[in-house]
Amino acid sequence: MSVDPRRLAHAIRFLAMDACERVGEGHPGTPLGAAETATALFTRHLKFNPADPLWFDRDRFVLSAGHGSMLLYALLHLTGYAGMPIEAIRSFRELGSPCEGHPEYCPAHGIEATTGPLGQGVANAAGMAVAEAFLAAQLGPGIVDHRSYAILGDGCLQEGVAQEVTSLAGHLRLGKLCWLWDDNRMTDDGAIGIAQSEDLPARFRAAHWQVLEVDGHDIDAVDAALRLARRDPRPSFIACRTIIGRGLPDIEGTRAAHSGKLTRALTDAARRALDWPHPAFEIPAEIAAAWREAGRRSLPQYEAWQGRVAALPKEKRRLLDRLREGRLPEGWQDGLRAYAGRAAAEGLTQHGWKTCGELVDLAAAAIPEMLAGAPDLEAATQHKRRLHAFTAEDRAGRYLHYGVREHAMGSMLNGIAAHGGVVPSGVTYLVFSDYERPAFRMAAMMGLPVLFAFTHDSIGIGRNGPTHQPVEYLASLRAIPNLLVFRPADAVEAAECWELAIGHRSGPSCLIFARQPQEAVRREAGGNRSARGAYVLAEAEGGPRAATLLATGTEVALALRARALLAAEGLPVAVVSMPCWELFEQQPRDYRAAVLGDAPRIGVEAAVRLGWDRWIGPEGAFIGMSGFGASGAEDDLWRHFGITAEAVAAAARDQAAGPA
Amino acid sequence: MSVDPRRLAHAIRFLAMDACERVGEGHPGTPLGAAETATALFTRHLKFNPADPLWFDRDRFVLSAGHGSMLLYALLHLTGYAGMPIEAIRSFRELGSPCEGHPEYCPAHGIEATTGPLGQGVANAAGMAVAEAFLAAQLGPGIVDHRSYAILGDGCLQEGVAQEVTSLAGHLRLGKLCWLWDDNRMTDDGAIGIAQSEDLPARFRAAHWQVLEVDGHDIDAVDAALRLARRDPRPSFIACRTIIGRGLPDIEGTRAAHSGKLTRALTDAARRALDWPHPAFEIPAEIAAAWREAGRRSLPQYEAWQGRVAALPKEKRRLLDRLREGRLPEGWQDGLRAYAGRAAAEGLTQHGWKTCGELVDLAAAAIPEMLAGAPDLEAATQHKRRLHAFTAEDRAGRYLHYGVREHAMGSMLNGIAAHGGVVPSGVTYLVFSDYERPAFRMAAMMGLPVLFAFTHDSIGIGRNGPTHQPVEYLASLRAIPNLLVFRPADAVEAAECWELAIGHRSGPSCLIFARQPQEAVRREAGGNRSARGAYVLAEAEGGPRAATLLATGTEVALALRARALLAAEGLPVAVVSMPCWELFEQQPRDYRAAVLGDAPRIGVEAAVRLGWDRWIGPEGAFIGMSGFGASGAEDDLWRHFGITAEAVAAAARDQAAGPA
Repeated sequence: MSVDPRRLAHAIRFLAMDACERVGEGHPGTPLGAAETATALFTRHLKFNPADPLWFDRDRFVLSAGHGSMLLYALLHLTGYAGMPIEAIRSFRELGSPCEGHPEYCPAHGIEATTGPLGQGVANAAGMAVAEAFLAAQLGPGIVDHRSYAILGDGCLQEGVAQEVTSLAGHLRLGKLCWLWDDNRMTDDGAIGIAQSEDLPARFRAAHWQVLEVDGHDIDAVDAALRLARRDPRPSFIACRTIIGRGLPDIEGTRAAHSGKLTRALTDAARRALDWPHPAFEIPAEIAAAWREAGRRSLPQYEAWQGRVAALPKEKRRLLDRLREGRLPEGWQDGLRAYAGRAAAEGLTQHGWKTCGELVDLAAAAIPEMLAGAPDLEAATQHKRRLHAFTAEDRAGRYLHYGVREHAMGSMLNGIAAHGGVVPSGVTYLVFSDYERPAFRMAAMMGLPVLFAFTHDSIGIGRNGPTHQPVEYLASLRAIPNLLVFRPADAVEAAECWELAIGHRSGPSCLIFARQPQEAVRREAGGNRSARGAYVLAEAEGGPRAATLLATGTEVALALRARALLAAEGLPVAVVSMPCWELFEQQPRDYRAAVLGDAPRIGVEAAVRLGWDRWIGPEGAFIGMSGFGASGAEDDLWRHFGITAEAVAAAARDQAAGPA
Repeated sequence: MSVDPRRLAHAIRFLAMDACERVGEGHPGTPLGAAETATALFTRHLKFNPADPLWFDRDRFVLSAGHGSMLLYALLHLTGYAGMPIEAIRSFRELGSPCEGHPEYCPAHGIEATTGPLGQGVANAAGMAVAEAFLAAQLGPGIVDHRSYAILGDGCLQEGVAQEVTSLAGHLRLGKLCWLWDDNRMTDDGAIGIAQSEDLPARFRAAHWQVLEVDGHDIDAVDAALRLARRDPRPSFIACRTIIGRGLPDIEGTRAAHSGKLTRALTDAARRALDWPHPAFEIPAEIAAAWREAGRRSLPQYEAWQGRVAALPKEKRRLLDRLREGRLPEGWQDGLRAYAGRAAAEGLTQHGWKTCGELVDLAAAAIPEMLAGAPDLEAATQHKRRLHAFTAEDRAGRYLHYGVREHAMGSMLNGIAAHGGVVPSGVTYLVFSDYERPAFRMAAMMGLPVLFAFTHDSIGIGRNGPTHQPVEYLASLRAIPNLLVFRPADAVEAAECWELAIGHRSGPSCLIFARQPQEAVRREAGGNRSARGAYVLAEAEGGPRAATLLATGTEVALALRARALLAAEGLPVAVVSMPCWELFEQQPRDYRAAVLGDAPRIGVEAAVRLGWDRWIGPEGAFIGMSGFGASGAEDDLWRHFGITAEAVAAAARDQAAGPA
């Protein structure tokens, strides 16, 4: 390359500056400070093809410091992604622009993950490295052999999720994972020393990473470190010492460079200082050409890979195509449907966690790309069963022991899904889902098909007490857009819901099970009644409905018992099971009205009322929780909190009698 | 002490075993494994007085490995806490017992924090150490000079929150913080090596902790380490190598000891192996006496402290009494009320974060024990202003730079509040509150008066895009029991809500503000209209209500504009401001009915609908968000998502016209 590589970095720098100046906001600090680091990566190491952004064996790059989004947009523009023309850069942060305030997941544009909330991106990258290792074991290194990179700042490293991932990635020896730390020693509040004095290289060495320390503005030094990273079996942490906002002579190295407003005077001074006389948004031809050349750098590898793919045996080729298109194998539902049939025939009543485990087991048997895992709850959640562990030594393993690291699990599941080719699931107790909640939001926003499973879903867990009894979680999960929340009543619905969740490819699902036995309420299977979200499980008999009981999960059986009590009194009451509110909300109005009926309604769920008024109305009765749980025997708790068939029946009687 | 100290540990061991065996569940692993470690701490170091559990200058002890709750209950029983008689131990895990499945906050019983969700307890202990240092600077070391201890397991250390706190506690040089790691190398899934291989001592050294490694079953060794901990200015991490379930010869050192069911055969074998012929729940007199003596060990210090308190100058004595009783200073509300008055008179319209910052500033000026902080958002949240930083060097500082560690902040705020004597507040962007959410739940469960403040509350933030735009957060916060969620409309309501939140001493509050200007909607102050949670801000004029607009936050101003549009058309519409749903829910039914009115209702909130049906009914209209936000100019976003006065007016017209 004849162009001085420092000029390549300047091209990033000025695109970023110009975009921030134009719109009057943005974070110039990272794109300017990490320009050389990114140049070294994109012009000498990253394996990618802007002409085929979805190339399955491309290296993955995540800008974990998402506020520095212009760094990524500039790189994608310069290397020739069709979705990132100069007009996109010019429209940075305008509604409808692909150059959004923070990068939004769009692999076709070269954006591998939505980032912004700190720590998420590095965890995603670790998940991608897991997916790569897992797929390489299935498809062979000729087909899958790529690396996962992230650029991150101090903020990412301070977040607990990144610390969890640091520990786990070192343990798993994710040797193709490389984090480039933009070590600029400046935060939003000021010098890093205000809040951080940890010896980060030592911290990474303690977690068994290779640690390299370089001048982040020295492209050759970063290049050399990246070479070393590629040769080491450990994940690599490259500390790139940089100056925030480098190139803005008036504010570089200061707090103002983080996200300070760029004025024309500031950018003019930068143009003078860096000998960059070109107008805003204009890249000199030779520099533009050199960047395009960098974007074509991997073409020989790309073509060789295509050749290897073409030469694959037919079966393997079919598998590869299926995986990269994200299609599930033919007949993947069969096992689940057979299970539902057996459960219906037998009237299977068993612990929710056991049912959940059996279904994951069946799904995993049918879907070889399913990668399950849990944060140190293998026995209690039964997610592992016949799967063997994915470890540093065995990449063919299909169960990841995440350790007690829920947040890392959630965010790595997102990375695994974003990578593609793998169906990730993770399970924990519902009450610990708050620890991974930030990952649910990102999965929902990215539209990633991640399976988040949970057991131990209510006061039904008994003696472990309120810390372990979720009461607000159903509501808080239902609040997240683009997330399906399933709470099946019994084993039949459980199989139906797992099928719906696995088949749902445009967003994540939560699947929620009890610890205690889930009593059989469905004695017929076939079709998938859960698919409409809610349905009449037992119509009123002996007359028009005097009341309708709406319930989810284990409380459906309780509603049925109340219905029987009332039937004995001659009060005809219907029971509606509502395993998935979001799917029910999508049904035609007529269907919803028919299911809900005109009679007074009573909601039954061992959780808080929030959200239930949608179905029962503000005057409807609700049998559930109004506060936290307690420690005691399960049966004592149901009675103590008044969640009993008798209480439901009494509420129905009151409601049926009408207002006093 | 003439009793062999190992026999003291055995007393813990057998109480734990007997309690677990009796109830048929529980986690014997920790109490048995950490029995000697805890014995060293409680019989030779911990400063406490079971006869006065609330002694302000006691050492704080948190069992972060909360599943090992019987360790704590045994210690409290043996050292003589009145609230922990042998009957309590016998009723372990029964409904109503003070010996709950996991420890529940109850300082009067010696339980300093609710623990169970891993990582929370160690963070609480760090918060307690901050409170101690802060109060010592205010009251002097003769009055406040105590240590904060935690016993934790591998699970706690794997959690991100603990990792964040590790980094921050080292940075802050919390020298009176000491973590005792029950290093038993066994997890629920099996040997620790399944998921962890990090060099934890090196990891703590990197964060500038003193690290000591001892045999956790050697009481003298633990004792010596605790001595060293007391002499070092750094926080101390004592790795106590132990055997899980030590004393159960058939299962000690195995996974089964973590939470396996204890049978009579197992405990009989333990009795034989440890030469403990005593019946279940019986402690031999000499051992019981030795433990009681240990419980009286700090009496000389206690009495000396009482003497120093008695000798305090009157002013300081008054301050101490006020702080330990958790009473706020006289007239603390004056500044807030005056602010409300000025804001009403001026029609103050200004950025939400600025108003929030000014109010915190006023509150802090009136409440010297207020300790504010934020995770690297000092400028954007304006929580610091005139406060100076609490640092390793300056313990009188009243603003803590938490770094980008939201979870640590939340859980440390809980520890600060649980310690007592300090009014903790922490602020961040609302969208990052998910990172600290597990702490909200614990604060609510413990009933701690923590002030969780948030800015940047909706799509109103504009160009930073959907990652930074909360849409589901109001609903998910409202789902948490015992948590007040305030979203004031303008500066007057803001002052009212801050007063309500600070004055609310039996639980936490969330205070939520916009990034953009919050338009003045209240032109009168005095009284506190927000105290009822919702109120009629503008009654319909020119006739009975044709519709009622219900709104919160910045959307109240929008509702008022819609009301004006409709008034011009002759449609009389009322606007109700609802700054706090939880307080409104507590009002008498008549008041609620009068506020809500009989006319059709329209909810207006730039967030998801979940929960709103409670107020508007399932057929009510809702103007808000149904999915995630977008990146663009603020005004473009309001229009794009249809949250405008025109849209509200149109919805009101439709509703007023009745069903089609």
